[in-house]
Amino acid sequence: MPASANGDLENLVVVLVRPRNPLNIGAAARAMTNFGAYQLRLVKSFAPAFRQARSAVGATDVLMKAEEFQTVAEAVADCALVIGTTTVRNRVLQHVVRRLDQESGCMIRNDLGASRVALLFGSEKIGLTNHDFSHCHWLLNIPTSAKNVSMNLGQAVAVCLYEIARSAASASTSNAAANESEPLATAGDIEQISALLLESLHKSGYVKPGNDAMCEKKVRSLVLRFDLKTLDATILLGMVRQIIWKLRLGEKD
Amino acid sequence: MPASANGDLENLVVVLVRPRNPLNIGAAARAMTNFGAYQLRLVKSFAPAFRQARSAVGATDVLMKAEEFQTVAEAVADCALVIGTTTVRNRVLQHVVRRLDQESGCMIRNDLGASRVALLFGSEKIGLTNHDFSHCHWLLNIPTSAKNVSMNLGQAVAVCLYEIARSAASASTSNAAANESEPLATAGDIEQISALLLESLHKSGYVKPGNDAMCEKKVRSLVLRFDLKTLDATILLGMVRQIIWKLRLGEKD
Repeated sequence: MPASANGDLENLVVVLVRPRNPLNIGAAARAMTNFGAYQLRLVKSFAPAFRQARSAVGATDVLMKAEEFQTVAEAVADCALVIGTTTVRNRVLQHVVRRLDQESGCMIRNDLGASRVALLFGSEKIGLTNHDFSHCHWLLNIPTSAKNVSMNLGQAVAVCLYEIARSAASASTSNAAANESEPLATAGDIEQISALLLESLHKSGYVKPGNDAMCEKKVRSLVLRFDLKTLDATILLGMVRQIIWKLRLGEKD
Repeated sequence: MPASANGDLENLVVVLVRPRNPLNIGAAARAMTNFGAYQLRLVKSFAPAFRQARSAVGATDVLMKAEEFQTVAEAVADCALVIGTTTVRNRVLQHVVRRLDQESGCMIRNDLGASRVALLFGSEKIGLTNHDFSHCHWLLNIPTSAKNVSMNLGQAVAVCLYEIARSAASASTSNAAANESEPLATAGDIEQISALLLESLHKSGYVKPGNDAMCEKKVRSLVLRFDLKTLDATILLGMVRQIIWKLRLGEKD
């Protein structure tokens, strides 16, 4: 690692969502080892692609230890911060979009000091979907020329990890939550709360027919924006469980 | 381009020296268009590789217009600044090695404002050789983890261009020569002076038998370190020509 960098990116989890090309999976793994990241996870990887990607210069270990998941939710369940990457700046999204070259690296480094952080990259063809984004706390924009915004997957991983590796954690740009002693709730906690809250909204008639998918995203985004600490997550989970119990009871009457 | 960047990297020339893999040539071209660079040159490209690389997402134009050369000297002849890339920090070299993440981007942006700048990338297997380095004013080090310093060619191009694109030209970090009104001598001028100086050293007996290659590199490096302006290059060229004339005359006596 650069002498000025504060250690490796050991707490960083690179998540490739629906990758198709084995060369890109290998290239992503290689860039990870170039910049000191070692945790690779794949969501709905095209199976032959993954098997063909088992070798990459200096990154065979990362590929061998890569974990496979069927959903984004499972892949990021143990991460306290989930960041989606995009080369598009102006999507109509309810997300904060931060540019890679504007202090994002420092923010991520700060969070990496205390928690596991997931960085999501979408498929070669379409990138991440709005559903993938609904699992993200915020989005990371790689600034590209308007003449060609479409980046190669392996190159996008390399550029992001270079920027994070070169950035120093800095109190002045910190995510306040990460600097306080109590750890953030994991994505798994958030998902559990979101699922129960959604169920209670179903039972209470808030969710209209045909509106399930939109509501699911809306609820997850809302809970993410709470920036819950572990303790608060436990409290909120208890509340929602109680509400659901009451609603279920009502159904029996 | 990023809104904060001062225009495109139009004066930047990306030179791939002895590339072997068509996918890497295509990937380099794609990264170039992602970050606003359009001049691609190839030195001793493995011919089938280049022919197979004729398409890359959004970069077909760059590939079609790519120029082929047989030597580094020819490829950089019209460039005022030649920079070699390396992931190795501690080579025994008489070159200044600057880290990509430490103001190098700003320095290159400053020079790009006034002159054509060549950025050299070596072959997949061995990178740039010492002979390639002898054409360079200084070397650019991409800081990588000690666990895997070997970067993929396309990813190395992407990371360098990202850093240069995100960097703003800045007076405080400028290469003084670039900010003065007179343009720098081109690599072609430097090569001409070096060749004549070498010949005069041969004729004067400075070059010992078997020492040609080392002397050639030594002379070229020396002349590069002069940081010659166009006018001074003309003056020096005149001097060396005169010396050679005298030496040749002596041989006839």
